[in-house]
Amino acid sequence: MFRINHNYTLLPGSYLFSEIARRVADFQAAHPEAEIIKMGIGDVTRPLCPAVVDALHQAVEEEAAAETFCGYGPEQGYPELRTLIARTDYRERGIDIDADEIFVSDGAKSDTGNITDILAADSKIAVTDPVYPVYVDTNVMGGRGGMLNADGRWSRITYLPCTEENGFCPALPATRPDVVYLCYPNNPTGTVLSREELTKWVDYCRREGVLLLFDAAYEAFVRTPGVPRSIYEIEGARETAIEFRSFSKTAGFTGIRLGYTVVPKELTGVDACGNKVGLHGLWKRRQTTKFNGASFLTQRAGEALYSPEGQQQVKEGIDFYLSNAATIREGLDAIGLRHVGGSDSPYIWVNSPEGMTSWEFFNLLLEKYHIVCTPGSGFGKAGEGYVRLTAFNSAERVAEAIKRLKSHSL
Amino acid sequence: MFRINHNYTLLPGSYLFSEIARRVADFQAAHPEAEIIKMGIGDVTRPLCPAVVDALHQAVEEEAAAETFCGYGPEQGYPELRTLIARTDYRERGIDIDADEIFVSDGAKSDTGNITDILAADSKIAVTDPVYPVYVDTNVMGGRGGMLNADGRWSRITYLPCTEENGFCPALPATRPDVVYLCYPNNPTGTVLSREELTKWVDYCRREGVLLLFDAAYEAFVRTPGVPRSIYEIEGARETAIEFRSFSKTAGFTGIRLGYTVVPKELTGVDACGNKVGLHGLWKRRQTTKFNGASFLTQRAGEALYSPEGQQQVKEGIDFYLSNAATIREGLDAIGLRHVGGSDSPYIWVNSPEGMTSWEFFNLLLEKYHIVCTPGSGFGKAGEGYVRLTAFNSAERVAEAIKRLKSHSL
Repeated sequence: MFRINHNYTLLPGSYLFSEIARRVADFQAAHPEAEIIKMGIGDVTRPLCPAVVDALHQAVEEEAAAETFCGYGPEQGYPELRTLIARTDYRERGIDIDADEIFVSDGAKSDTGNITDILAADSKIAVTDPVYPVYVDTNVMGGRGGMLNADGRWSRITYLPCTEENGFCPALPATRPDVVYLCYPNNPTGTVLSREELTKWVDYCRREGVLLLFDAAYEAFVRTPGVPRSIYEIEGARETAIEFRSFSKTAGFTGIRLGYTVVPKELTGVDACGNKVGLHGLWKRRQTTKFNGASFLTQRAGEALYSPEGQQQVKEGIDFYLSNAATIREGLDAIGLRHVGGSDSPYIWVNSPEGMTSWEFFNLLLEKYHIVCTPGSGFGKAGEGYVRLTAFNSAERVAEAIKRLKSHSL
Repeated sequence: MFRINHNYTLLPGSYLFSEIARRVADFQAAHPEAEIIKMGIGDVTRPLCPAVVDALHQAVEEEAAAETFCGYGPEQGYPELRTLIARTDYRERGIDIDADEIFVSDGAKSDTGNITDILAADSKIAVTDPVYPVYVDTNVMGGRGGMLNADGRWSRITYLPCTEENGFCPALPATRPDVVYLCYPNNPTGTVLSREELTKWVDYCRREGVLLLFDAAYEAFVRTPGVPRSIYEIEGARETAIEFRSFSKTAGFTGIRLGYTVVPKELTGVDACGNKVGLHGLWKRRQTTKFNGASFLTQRAGEALYSPEGQQQVKEGIDFYLSNAATIREGLDAIGLRHVGGSDSPYIWVNSPEGMTSWEFFNLLLEKYHIVCTPGSGFGKAGEGYVRLTAFNSAERVAEAIKRLKSHSL
């Protein structure tokens, strides 16, 4: 009988969101009158902006006429979009990235998952804790996890705790990994790293020959002056880092799917014989072999984001979510709950009240305030004792949630 | 220094289409007056049908309004589309497939490439020759190729020749592989397999515990009564086969990206300990971890294909290409070139004139008739001595090409 990839059998079920859904459903059934406000969800709520809507209708018409119909496009994306990205997101900000180094895709989840294809099977991986689960799960699927310990951690993966104690800044690993994943602005904590912190990481990775996988899916939320939006703002990063970007949270593309990955031409690893190999060529080969390009319609929508109207509308959308985040932060301050994030991120990471676990605080918020959060322990061991709130909601629902929190003491 | 996946370094460059483009460009530069007709391309030329265009405009409006906006959808696709697929493509044709067994994706290239994720790293692979290169290249990337021989074949891959000598019907492999890829109607030969032939394969795979990966991307072109359009028309296939489907050639979705993969719940392999493991759960885990669903817009477009108008328009589109194929076949008959395919497929596989290689015939067609084909040797060793023509063109261009062929003897 043919054999399957055994590593898949090592993965525990992923029950976080189904467990949340179950508890919410049970509570709603017992309290049908309760108006539950969902503040745990990482999905946008605002519709597509007008510039995108216009571009999409136009792109549909292009596909409707034989003269303008586009079939297969380049797997790496249309040159027009790649040029706009390189120019607007990088060169106009003084960052040296070429259009040819941009690989357009159907989203950052695909890219952060598929990037493991081009890594050696026995690579040692380091991740922050708490962490976006895709980084860990995809490496376990690739045989890089080792054994699952009782505390939910994998024996071959290095975890870099980010907690209140270290100001949510991960320390450099004690032993050298081959690959480090960093996501800033961070999901789930909503924290950012300063230029100095990121420089520390880039210097370390260059010195030690470590590949830095930098997930910048939330970069558009950065408003604090001086906080880097791209790893390539740091000198030397072109030699050590791949950057992932997404239009999901920036422009509400979670449903229509668009992202991109930057692989600079200087970035090299070594093959089994120790010869240098450029990662740009490897990723190009991966994408041209296993992917057939993002939807033409969505790529046209992406181009529209770079028009003056598009840029303005994107900014307004993010302003809206950041205003929600500010409302949440003020509310948490008023009731004396410690928190981070929410100023350069749609996520607010909240300390549970003294002595409560993440799930205990989840239950309290649900039962007493009819608010749904995401328990921090679902993102890793170091997330225990925290919950994640998100700004993806209407202003009215956010205001109502905060009103409820203020009206009864915890 | 971190190490890369060494298997990528084993892959030779993929120069087929760039070499074609180079020769065409050189010829055009030398003969600027020549009106070159491209008949090598595997991409559709007709625009999206009206039912799809309407659905897309409507879907854009849904994404434009807060009340109807859809963000993240289920990674496996929206239930509406999966239900329509299961009902129309399977149950109404008497085939037992459940909506829950349909995994909607951004296309068959992604799925046929990514499916290798869930296979054991040392699986032995068998492919037909000639073959769609993605099956081979993705397995080489996964370390299943062995060494590249001088004849362009990989030492660990079993090749099953499909040539005029065996009526383009692959023989069962001499030694048992773990996985067999079959694509019918075939790319590149355009041939189909009868119910008896497919039954032989399903019986073999069940008996020997072989996973059958069945690529049915061209099933909508089947018009010959009795020729199966799905592997699940064969008894027992639910226990041994995964089927890949695409909307690319069916409905001109090459640019907007939609396909699906069927993984029946009975289908099991074994893990490293010999325990049975269902592939449905493995593929679901793969897709939920490394993919975030096909575009909402394209899924809505897919739903529209299942309306009565949509079905009619799809049929008209395929009729059009099949009519082109018939024109090509008649022309080839008239000038005495042997060929197969083109009656249940958009592809016609043509014997080069006696003693000519694929590239020699390519040159002749280009230089004498200003027609571009794809050399069969680009699809594998057994493709030498053939070229592929495609029906994806306007009726006028096809008629003109045939007129040219008839006007001068080869």
